[in-house]
Amino acid sequence: MIVNTPTMLVRTLCSLIAMAATTVVAADFAALPKTATLETDSPQIIALGKKLFFDPRLSATGTVSCNSCHNLMEGGDDGRATSMGVDGLTGGRNSPTVWNAVFQSSQFWDGRAKDLAEQAKGPFVADVEMGMGVHDQVVGRIQQIPDYVREFDNVFGQGNAVTIDNAVTAIAAFERTLITPNAPLDHYLAGDKNALTDAQVRGMDLFQSTGCTECHFGPALNGWDPGDDEAVFVEFPRNLDSSFVRKYDLDSDRGRAEATQQESDAHQFKTPVLRNITLTAPYMHNGNVASLAEACRVMASTQLDTDLSEDEISDLVAFMESLVGEFPPITLPRLPSRSGTSVVVEFK
Amino acid sequence: MIVNTPTMLVRTLCSLIAMAATTVVAADFAALPKTATLETDSPQIIALGKKLFFDPRLSATGTVSCNSCHNLMEGGDDGRATSMGVDGLTGGRNSPTVWNAVFQSSQFWDGRAKDLAEQAKGPFVADVEMGMGVHDQVVGRIQQIPDYVREFDNVFGQGNAVTIDNAVTAIAAFERTLITPNAPLDHYLAGDKNALTDAQVRGMDLFQSTGCTECHFGPALNGWDPGDDEAVFVEFPRNLDSSFVRKYDLDSDRGRAEATQQESDAHQFKTPVLRNITLTAPYMHNGNVASLAEACRVMASTQLDTDLSEDEISDLVAFMESLVGEFPPITLPRLPSRSGTSVVVEFK
Repeated sequence: MIVNTPTMLVRTLCSLIAMAATTVVAADFAALPKTATLETDSPQIIALGKKLFFDPRLSATGTVSCNSCHNLMEGGDDGRATSMGVDGLTGGRNSPTVWNAVFQSSQFWDGRAKDLAEQAKGPFVADVEMGMGVHDQVVGRIQQIPDYVREFDNVFGQGNAVTIDNAVTAIAAFERTLITPNAPLDHYLAGDKNALTDAQVRGMDLFQSTGCTECHFGPALNGWDPGDDEAVFVEFPRNLDSSFVRKYDLDSDRGRAEATQQESDAHQFKTPVLRNITLTAPYMHNGNVASLAEACRVMASTQLDTDLSEDEISDLVAFMESLVGEFPPITLPRLPSRSGTSVVVEFK
Repeated sequence: MIVNTPTMLVRTLCSLIAMAATTVVAADFAALPKTATLETDSPQIIALGKKLFFDPRLSATGTVSCNSCHNLMEGGDDGRATSMGVDGLTGGRNSPTVWNAVFQSSQFWDGRAKDLAEQAKGPFVADVEMGMGVHDQVVGRIQQIPDYVREFDNVFGQGNAVTIDNAVTAIAAFERTLITPNAPLDHYLAGDKNALTDAQVRGMDLFQSTGCTECHFGPALNGWDPGDDEAVFVEFPRNLDSSFVRKYDLDSDRGRAEATQQESDAHQFKTPVLRNITLTAPYMHNGNVASLAEACRVMASTQLDTDLSEDEISDLVAFMESLVGEFPPITLPRLPSRSGTSVVVEFK
């Protein structure tokens, strides 16, 4: 589960070979899949999941939806260091993007959810996110909205279909449609050598030769290959002597160990997706690093014990510009209403 | 500016005539216009205004957009008694719907803004709404996003086009598209006598005969007729002996007087739009009335000194169900980004 699995060693060898040959190794860079939809993801379940994703009434205050912290109008995050949930409360970690999250081999920074559906359960009942006391309150809100009840029954089969498991199953089905293919990198990998600028090609080579691809490989540059079903974690920060560790408070969050209570999981984190990374500042699990250029300096120092020149940083950032893909058009859902009363307000 | 203007008297006479004839008077009920777009509302300015309307980065915390309290996915409001702005702060009044707000002869509950553009300036700098200190901070955020700057320049002409006046002009242009025509009432008025149920027709007649149309007349049932450009206000509550006044704290807000400091404006309020009123619970300027049925009881008592039977209340609510129109499909905007840094987070 940690770095330096046999697969990782093979990849490192591949990187070394690639460095020698200065050519792109397919295993490090790959086109983003254009679909991740499951056979069971009907248009109806996706449409229901979309409504639930955008519905702020599923939070205690009626003000926070999935989209509040994972804004699909921009980078699939919220542009904040740490997210703001109900009543202005904030947590300790940066909101990861929901775009291409289907390509994560586990969810949350500490990988404590195995998939999108399990992830979607968490924020509903997190005090500082959607703030519902228990999942039954979420179910209760939905049950008060007749058109939702009908839609759940239609999608999942008649009778008592409003359950938290069905709700997150629908949300996950919608999230599997949130893919951004056809980035300049994808066009380049498909053979269009004009798709990247010279700086981007230099950055791409540097990304590989410096060792970034040791963890950030594959279609989403997050250490995942199609078909992988095992969650992979890496140690962060590795180099505790880096001055950035104290500057950005990079080691007080014990990562996966906070979820598992296992000392062996201390400072293990999921490798984040780098697709659209230019759109999701600020950076790191705690959002303490404001710019992507600084994030590159931090990662080079803490993970690879390397100092990069400003020209190299500039090329790396240029390469990451080539990871912004095409965002599918999304029609705003119409949320069903309870006529004449709000489910957010208790009856007087 | 207050009730019992000559126009109001004419309307009351019309209502009395209508009561005698038990037929619909065109002046009381009218089809909603299908467009309110001005000649200057180009597709480009509307598209820009839509982005600004949905952009939470224009609030201090990066979490509150116009759409947060005027949610276009539902009733154009937020389903709360009073809205929640930045840092979980709340104000004292209920968020009015933005759907068909173009048909208000003035904006805000106290009418202190003459039009949509002037209204849109308010929440940016309200402490408990979007929380920006001054409008220049809003402009500053926009100016940091290169694609916004280009879009402002294209829409308004080259050079320094990012101003608060241009921003709210664009937002107002978008809001003029937020119209919900073709409600059952509109079909009924067009001659389709099957468009309303028997209960809805009874409710419609009762709405008129009880005197609701004294204030709630015209296409949006808010005392506005096409071409009107004078703001009209009504006294609320009129009947201070109503038990509802204390129960729902209906007289501590002095309405228009809080904006004008004129004693003659005390307890004067804008008449709200009734289109889609079933979708915007809770009710009244302070949101203290949870259900539409109770809102009908309150208004009958405080404004018309009338007690209605539960059957009558039921018919009135049924009539209001006929005011839900067709919502135009809205594509989620893509918000322009500043690459590699967030405009919400100060640089470190």
